[in-house]
Amino acid sequence: MNTTQLLALDAWQLSTLLTRRELKAEALVRACLERITEREGAVHAFTALDPDAVLATARALDAGPVRGLLHGLPIGVKDLFDTADLATTYGSSIYAGYRPRADASPVALCRQAGALVLGKTVSTEFAYFTPGPTRNPHNTAHTPGGSSSGSAAAVADRMLPLALGTQTAGSIIRPAAYCGVVGFKPSLGRVASGGVKSLSPTMDIVGGFGRSVRDVSLLGAVLTCDARLSGWRDLSTSDSPRIGFFQTPAWPQADADVQRAWAQATRILSVQAKDCQDVTTPFNFGDLIQLQKDVMTFEMARALSHEHIHHRARLSAPLNSLLDDGMAMTGEQHAANLSTVAQWRQRIDALFECHDVLLTPSTTGIAPEGTATGDPLFCRSWSILGLPSVHLPFTTGHKGLPVGLQLVGRFGQDHHLLAAAQWVQERLQG
Amino acid sequence: MNTTQLLALDAWQLSTLLTRRELKAEALVRACLERITEREGAVHAFTALDPDAVLATARALDAGPVRGLLHGLPIGVKDLFDTADLATTYGSSIYAGYRPRADASPVALCRQAGALVLGKTVSTEFAYFTPGPTRNPHNTAHTPGGSSSGSAAAVADRMLPLALGTQTAGSIIRPAAYCGVVGFKPSLGRVASGGVKSLSPTMDIVGGFGRSVRDVSLLGAVLTCDARLSGWRDLSTSDSPRIGFFQTPAWPQADADVQRAWAQATRILSVQAKDCQDVTTPFNFGDLIQLQKDVMTFEMARALSHEHIHHRARLSAPLNSLLDDGMAMTGEQHAANLSTVAQWRQRIDALFECHDVLLTPSTTGIAPEGTATGDPLFCRSWSILGLPSVHLPFTTGHKGLPVGLQLVGRFGQDHHLLAAAQWVQERLQG
Repeated sequence: MNTTQLLALDAWQLSTLLTRRELKAEALVRACLERITEREGAVHAFTALDPDAVLATARALDAGPVRGLLHGLPIGVKDLFDTADLATTYGSSIYAGYRPRADASPVALCRQAGALVLGKTVSTEFAYFTPGPTRNPHNTAHTPGGSSSGSAAAVADRMLPLALGTQTAGSIIRPAAYCGVVGFKPSLGRVASGGVKSLSPTMDIVGGFGRSVRDVSLLGAVLTCDARLSGWRDLSTSDSPRIGFFQTPAWPQADADVQRAWAQATRILSVQAKDCQDVTTPFNFGDLIQLQKDVMTFEMARALSHEHIHHRARLSAPLNSLLDDGMAMTGEQHAANLSTVAQWRQRIDALFECHDVLLTPSTTGIAPEGTATGDPLFCRSWSILGLPSVHLPFTTGHKGLPVGLQLVGRFGQDHHLLAAAQWVQERLQG
Repeated sequence: MNTTQLLALDAWQLSTLLTRRELKAEALVRACLERITEREGAVHAFTALDPDAVLATARALDAGPVRGLLHGLPIGVKDLFDTADLATTYGSSIYAGYRPRADASPVALCRQAGALVLGKTVSTEFAYFTPGPTRNPHNTAHTPGGSSSGSAAAVADRMLPLALGTQTAGSIIRPAAYCGVVGFKPSLGRVASGGVKSLSPTMDIVGGFGRSVRDVSLLGAVLTCDARLSGWRDLSTSDSPRIGFFQTPAWPQADADVQRAWAQATRILSVQAKDCQDVTTPFNFGDLIQLQKDVMTFEMARALSHEHIHHRARLSAPLNSLLDDGMAMTGEQHAANLSTVAQWRQRIDALFECHDVLLTPSTTGIAPEGTATGDPLFCRSWSILGLPSVHLPFTTGHKGLPVGLQLVGRFGQDHHLLAAAQWVQERLQG
């Protein structure tokens, strides 16, 4: 197999070859490095690479027993995660050259499962809106989205089969949508967050990117230590999930591309799924957008208090402005917001009595032109609710850029969500 | 005022003198350092001190405007919090000499409010059970409790007026009880946790120690950015709170000292409070103990995965055993536990319809002799429920060692809890 053929395979297929010893991890790493050499000048997905070290680790893996679900798979790690062997900057010059003492918990778990950390990928500044240098590999005049910009772009551009990201507002689902890859955000609290730079501790979630549902299911199984996530095939994909079509109150802000994709997907699914129903907006669902913003603004101002106090001049103007706004908010309001969030998390569970998953937009449209990372409008509610979600690439919009849709699952039912996502992906691709 | 007189004052009184400029921060720091020099050889509360740097900062504070609620107050910081200017070890030799790049968020907030970080205080190994060298200042043959051992001991021994701690099982309330100081654990999610070593992200809570309720209310107001917490006097302490007496299903494990303190306190409060009622155990409240253990064991194994994989030989046997147990637990069980926890947090709220606060034991007895840090039995339920709680010192048990009781408040109502604690403290001391 030549490099192009090898990199056309998804992580699941690569994993099969690696565990059967029909493919050497070293060969796969070399193919990825070749692709990176070819494309990095245009895409700028990475902040740190150490090819020699990764090749040495790959050779050691090839010489030893199969380690786990990610054996021999090269992964990218968003530069918001601490790594003991690669510089970690959190997307800010304040941390230039910083080398943490330990791997963040998710990185340690992936390595233990046999993954090879090929490099650190670009994050926006502290995972907020100020972009890094990454460009959308489908059209470098466009943003890859953020904040997990480099991870989404590297997977989309076949530099890597898998990559880690984080989401507080829309930082996994949105770049997955803009880059046309599968993004998976697990249920809140299911993935250890130690060593991941904290933004909004009541919402921050670790997840990742792949090119298929089965790819992110491998990663998800390792991150949550729940084998059911990669066992979706056992959940019988012939069983149709009950799907709720939920446009949400933000629907008027979905553009023509998203509305077309929605119409097309719901038409297909209505025919093929046993049970599809439109979801009428429950309660004041639209309030969740502002609630997410308020909790995030308050918490980010405290999470980044050291940087805000000591390095103000090295923070971007938008971030300083957010942190100023956050510091002006009171803990009294925050306490009330946390209580409201707790009520919402309880209340939303009722929606899943009659739907296994909700189909909903991922973004307002294709990746915008320029560097701004786009609007997380359709992700904020699911982030604050802590529900698992998957972005499924589906079709293209204008300029041929990717458009897809989001599936949202019940809290803690990440394995059912992935099984449903696999079912939907097969129908939409058919 | 001589050193003894000065150190007899609580943080609230010191704060009054400091903000009126009747006391210099430098003089207070010198008094604390004098006390530390005298006592540290017996108590072993500190892991790092830099007297010259703190004195320089104190002089700068004395020369400038009043900074905030903690202006000029020396504080101790549990060695689980990152500090940019002092070594941070998390209670483990793995991190010997580690100097983080930034202050943990709570440290940055305290400094911004004018606090002087006098030193880092001893934590047990990664805030689990393996003790550090700290001894109980009331009787050095006994444990100070843990995991916030040094913070509780230093405040009890008048080396410092205030100190920061964290709780995942019982790591604030238990050492507060054993050392006879006030401990305050805020509601889950109200205090930023960035830069605090993560153990169990769905339960870890930052709080602190003082010698009176009004002391911890100052610290609490800064940590939560909620001015109501230090405004408890405005909540009218003449209004009696409605108190639920809740022995919990663990009551049979409370020893004679605790049962005597309970009888005495409930007798006083029954006479003085408008509304006191015995709480009958709701639902299967006793199940919360095992639930807390399971969630903590699963999450700690992931949080400390880097250390567990790479530094096994430098972890204590009990910690390795816990982490092994945790790694053997499945994410499937963890997901189910998180759902159960969410239901419990919702359900417990009903208890506070008829009680403003619950009175409940803090510990099974006085500080045990030896080095083992004691049993967090009476704290685990409140930790997993995420409810705010306060330990109130009250009387003494055998060997003259401190015994007190715990007050638990409604989620997010930390200010009401502190007002009630002040009311109860005044009645019990009267």
